[in-house]
Amino acid sequence: MAFVEKVTKESSLDFVPVPERIATFDNDGTLWAEQPMYFQAFFVFDRIKSLAPEHPEWKEKETFASVLKGDVKAALAGGEHALLEMAMATHTGMTTEEFYAIVTDWIATAKHPKTKRLYTEMVYQPMIELLAYLRANGFKTFIVSGGGVEFMRPWTEKIYGIPPEQVIGSSIKTKFEMHDGKPVLVRLPEMNFVDDGAGKPVGINTHIGRRPIAAFGNSDGDLQMMQWTAAGKGARLCLYVHHTDAEREWAYDRKSAVGRFDKGLDEAKSKGWTVVDIKNDWKVIFLFDGK
Amino acid sequence: MAFVEKVTKESSLDFVPVPERIATFDNDGTLWAEQPMYFQAFFVFDRIKSLAPEHPEWKEKETFASVLKGDVKAALAGGEHALLEMAMATHTGMTTEEFYAIVTDWIATAKHPKTKRLYTEMVYQPMIELLAYLRANGFKTFIVSGGGVEFMRPWTEKIYGIPPEQVIGSSIKTKFEMHDGKPVLVRLPEMNFVDDGAGKPVGINTHIGRRPIAAFGNSDGDLQMMQWTAAGKGARLCLYVHHTDAEREWAYDRKSAVGRFDKGLDEAKSKGWTVVDIKNDWKVIFLFDGK
Repeated sequence: MAFVEKVTKESSLDFVPVPERIATFDNDGTLWAEQPMYFQAFFVFDRIKSLAPEHPEWKEKETFASVLKGDVKAALAGGEHALLEMAMATHTGMTTEEFYAIVTDWIATAKHPKTKRLYTEMVYQPMIELLAYLRANGFKTFIVSGGGVEFMRPWTEKIYGIPPEQVIGSSIKTKFEMHDGKPVLVRLPEMNFVDDGAGKPVGINTHIGRRPIAAFGNSDGDLQMMQWTAAGKGARLCLYVHHTDAEREWAYDRKSAVGRFDKGLDEAKSKGWTVVDIKNDWKVIFLFDGK
Repeated sequence: MAFVEKVTKESSLDFVPVPERIATFDNDGTLWAEQPMYFQAFFVFDRIKSLAPEHPEWKEKETFASVLKGDVKAALAGGEHALLEMAMATHTGMTTEEFYAIVTDWIATAKHPKTKRLYTEMVYQPMIELLAYLRANGFKTFIVSGGGVEFMRPWTEKIYGIPPEQVIGSSIKTKFEMHDGKPVLVRLPEMNFVDDGAGKPVGINTHIGRRPIAAFGNSDGDLQMMQWTAAGKGARLCLYVHHTDAEREWAYDRKSAVGRFDKGLDEAKSKGWTVVDIKNDWKVIFLFDGK
């Protein structure tokens, strides 16, 4: 709040005009949870199960076979390469409109294995309030996530109040085609852009073309976004969410495979960035807490 | 105005909520002039002249040598390949901040060879009024141009009222690096995305993630954007600017090398899209007309 006052008070030396009040938010682990694995990975696994009847060959093919047997641990053992292969097999080949409908349907019904809640219920209430508070003070809020941009856009406006044009994420290539005289965009099995780590400042520059004055993240994948934000002139806010509550949520940092927070934690300490300690700082994590 | 009333009147069957009122505008030939060649080509030529002392080899190298001799016709004879080579030589190798400063300096001082006016004075006054009118009716206005996104962003907010995050254009790749402990984005001599023709719906989808309900262009390079816009449900406005005034501006269409308007003109007629005839429909073209 001290930062917001500094940049919004017209008499302040650090005053920032409304159009330049850009705030960027990581999604996984910053706006919603990301354990025991990225929620988009649950989507991939559910899609494999749905599509299996059309792909009898998957029964013999790792890591698809492990997913179909319900052996998540074996499926994840294939690492990023296997996950990317499964993402391509489930996220491409259809039009953008068809994919939008698939995501919309899944997000409205799929439940998290631990909490049995909708994934969109597993958003951090303090961050939802922060988004609204910043917007009430003239900020434009953006998501800058390693997640798939077309996996997020169907629901971010309703859940976070962030419209699709303010969502930046990883993407695959698409191609304009005419199908029976109707123009469509077909999703191709080829990466277009990976919006993570050093890709985040690149994505911010490509998409926004203006440096954020505030950035929010939770992992080493957000470090370059923080550095890019901090390097601008004038007042800056860099805030890391530190997952410290094993009881109400999950506790993980330096050694976690998902959302590793190691170099970022060191740099946050050395640079004096704000670090939120979930266990001690957040009275409520999820709206359903204690219900 | 009939279209705007239809989509903004709450009792209308075609009512569109504010967040979905997306309007996309081509830039060259639609918002500002584009003859005798794209204004960004003048920028390229001026950059070659400025950088020539550091590149003695350019004196012997076509098409650089023709540019240095002031022979524009010979320079353009090299076609798109030569222009791309010259663009890469003049648009890359520096940081994004350095390039921003170069463009800002050029656009503030360079003059058009025919009118002797600043390029930013050669914007179409009726289109400036249209942008303001749409925004006053809750539309979000975007540029979707084949021009370089970082060539446009330094001045679009001041001239058109369109902030950098609502400018979509062609781009080169950039790379995040640390220079003496300071993070920078370095511009690389490699195309990232060509936002023209079938690339326009792709760029719109990547960047906005929502289909426009109104689109404005002037050439065949805008045709797929028009088709994509027209194919959505509900009321749509597709408007082509037709350059018909050889006296106050330029007259060109089906056979022009710059801004060819041939297939687009046929499809506009067959689909009943709006075609503005500059000579007969625009009382004022540039604000400096008659001065």
